[in-house]
Amino acid sequence: MSDHPVEAFEPPYYVAVFTTIRTGEQDGYPETNARMEELVNQIPGYLGMDHAQTPGGLGITVGYFRDAEALTRWRTDEEHRAAQQRGRAEWYQSYTLHIAKVERSHGFTRAD
Amino acid sequence: MSDHPVEAFEPPYYVAVFTTIRTGEQDGYPETNARMEELVNQIPGYLGMDHAQTPGGLGITVGYFRDAEALTRWRTDEEHRAAQQRGRAEWYQSYTLHIAKVERSHGFTRAD
Repeated sequence: MSDHPVEAFEPPYYVAVFTTIRTGEQDGYPETNARMEELVNQIPGYLGMDHAQTPGGLGITVGYFRDAEALTRWRTDEEHRAAQQRGRAEWYQSYTLHIAKVERSHGFTRAD
Repeated sequence: MSDHPVEAFEPPYYVAVFTTIRTGEQDGYPETNARMEELVNQIPGYLGMDHAQTPGGLGITVGYFRDAEALTRWRTDEEHRAAQQRGRAEWYQSYTLHIAKVERSHGFTRAD
């Protein structure tokens, strides 16, 4: 996932930008995170994900979805909702979620 | 910038999601990066920025802008264009840029 960024898709598509600061209480977080990756991969219209984490600082996860329907499915998934609830109770100090429709995009990869 | 994520603004607004893998050649990058932060802060309609960097891995920068005009000003800034060109020549192995209009957003901060 971190060898290269997710590519530019043909617009329109959606991004879910999730920015987080975590608490010191991370019991169960890695397992739940792995399970969420497994689940989101099963959503029709899910295109991929980028993640970066500054040690001790901000984490950013960007999920890419083909359409609003795919996002709704993911947002309303029961296991995902339970994980969100636990996240607010234990794992996140603060977070922001921005849901946005991509109007244009492009990518670059070195030739050499 | 990394004490807490940028807040949720009132939609609509724009996000510029810039995901990067850098090369081993980073001469001049920190100085240029600092200068770009200084410049973007002068763009009317610029709202803020989140950045996360996995050590040795993916970097994600998310810029927030009030409207398309603010993004156009930033995209066409001469000094910014020169920095982009140098980025492709030296600093970036690969990158993707997604420009998207935010339709909804929300935030969470712990009470305690």
